Amino acid sequence: MKNKFYQYIQDLQDSITTKLETIDSKAKFKQDLWKRPEGGGGRTRVIENGAVFEKGGVNISGVHGKLPKSMQVYFNVGVVDFFACGLSLVLHPKNPMVPTVHANWRYFEMYDEDGSIIDSWFGGGQDLTPYYLFEDDAKHFHQTCKTACDKHNPEFYPIYKKRCDEYFYNTHRNEGRGVGGLFFDYCKTSDDMTMENWYNFVTEIGNSFLTAYTPIVEKRKDLPYTKANRDWQEIRRGRYVEFNLVHDKGTLFGLKTNGRIESILMSLPPHVQWVYDHHPKPGSEEAKLLEVLANPKTWA
Amino acid sequence: MKNKFYQYIQDLQDSITTKLETIDSKAKFKQDLWKRPEGGGGRTRVIENGAVFEKGGVNISGVHGKLPKSMQVYFNVGVVDFFACGLSLVLHPKNPMVPTVHANWRYFEMYDEDGSIIDSWFGGGQDLTPYYLFEDDAKHFHQTCKTACDKHNPEFYPIYKKRCDEYFYNTHRNEGRGVGGLFFDYCKTSDDMTMENWYNFVTEIGNSFLTAYTPIVEKRKDLPYTKANRDWQEIRRGRYVEFNLVHDKGTLFGLKTNGRIESILMSLPPHVQWVYDHHPKPGSEEAKLLEVLANPKTWA
Repeated sequence: MKNKFYQYIQDLQDSITTKLETIDSKAKFKQDLWKRPEGGGGRTRVIENGAVFEKGGVNISGVHGKLPKSMQVYFNVGVVDFFACGLSLVLHPKNPMVPTVHANWRYFEMYDEDGSIIDSWFGGGQDLTPYYLFEDDAKHFHQTCKTACDKHNPEFYPIYKKRCDEYFYNTHRNEGRGVGGLFFDYCKTSDDMTMENWYNFVTEIGNSFLTAYTPIVEKRKDLPYTKANRDWQEIRRGRYVEFNLVHDKGTLFGLKTNGRIESILMSLPPHVQWVYDHHPKPGSEEAKLLEVLANPKTWA
Repeated sequence: MKNKFYQYIQDLQDSITTKLETIDSKAKFKQDLWKRPEGGGGRTRVIENGAVFEKGGVNISGVHGKLPKSMQVYFNVGVVDFFACGLSLVLHPKNPMVPTVHANWRYFEMYDEDGSIIDSWFGGGQDLTPYYLFEDDAKHFHQTCKTACDKHNPEFYPIYKKRCDEYFYNTHRNEGRGVGGLFFDYCKTSDDMTMENWYNFVTEIGNSFLTAYTPIVEKRKDLPYTKANRDWQEIRRGRYVEFNLVHDKGTLFGLKTNGRIESILMSLPPHVQWVYDHHPKPGSEEAKLLEVLANPKTWA
């Protein structure tokens, strides 16, 4: 399974970066191969200063070895060997009318002393962070997620949509990071689902990413915007930074377990502002966004 | 003691904001009074878009009531009443040749059921974060810290200087946040020091702040700078954000114990950049700064 899924994310990275370069038309992804001293490594691809994408990364990694101490505590296990691989992407478009997107699909294995798998699971999701709310975009993104989920189990979409709203939430601001999407974790063998079933589900979601996101980019990338729109985008990006550095488990794990810093922090936006006690005008487009972030909606 | 120290920080806030307004000559501090629902409140003073200070806050607060659960765990105590007050300041100058500065002086009390003090201590410090390293500035700042410390105990400066280097450290980057200063905490009654002695020490440091920082501002605020200097400043400010959101105990406590978010996050810089895998040219002024941040120096 680990080889099959690692092959899958390699291919997916290729198809996603190829398509994004076509859309951008100006910038190309810069590739960095890196090795983890304790075992494994990754292929980081970063795009910067594009016509459409101001900054973004589409990264894969596959790491293995002894489970780091902090993860032993987290998973409540002893000294065990592990393997983990995944694709993580974040795209920060230049035009404030185009939403930021994040996605991640990952697979994890732990082994006993004989090298037999003692536990394994899939995790992942994809979620949208607009600066200006186009309801059609949120509906399209969520409908694509729902269609992909429904092929496997009609209960998946409502559950994983709710988990996404709950996870990507800035508790210290009482607001969601964005309009959500899907978030799932610890997808393990059960009465209903074999690991093969989970593989089919996770790759279905991975394959739906470009369909979920790129039509929105095409539709909004040439819309006009003002300096005020751009300031608002940079202020909202500050909330994105707050979530990733204060709450996001993946980021904090990476930072505290000696991960490759530049690959982890490629998720941080290029230009960001913090303004003291900023509040948009009541009734404005900016205020309309905040309303939805404080009260997650049903989109599909 | 609590009334005496709270009076002191009120007066110190006045003298600091008055002096900074004089230096800035354009912007004034905007004051926000706030109340904490569970007891106490604060006086936040923020300056923005000044001629010298792009953003900064000089805040006092005095809060009391039942110790929040997360702090009970942290201090390893049960349900007790507490009182805490302090002054916190962060100043982000516009000109990249002027360093950012942070300072904090605080006092804490915990009570038994009868309202008797079961524990009390002072804490605080002040530290400098330059974007370009002027050795004279680091020396002046540290010498002022040392002179203030030496009046109370010649052992204080080396100990608190080292703690500052250790505390304001981005472990995930293997570099210091800045060139340090002083950091002390849990300053309690001992054979050598009564609480009155500690009060005299902490207020001596508080009184030294303007002497330590403002001559540096006056000396550098009109130096010319380029867009490249400014970009570097904004990239380095990203590291400041990383420290405050990932590592700083005060910030995380505030965010997780329902503190006043805008007063806590006034510490975040106004304009910030994250550039993927950024490295200054070997031998440049920028590289010289990184060298010192990775290897803290003796300045006084």
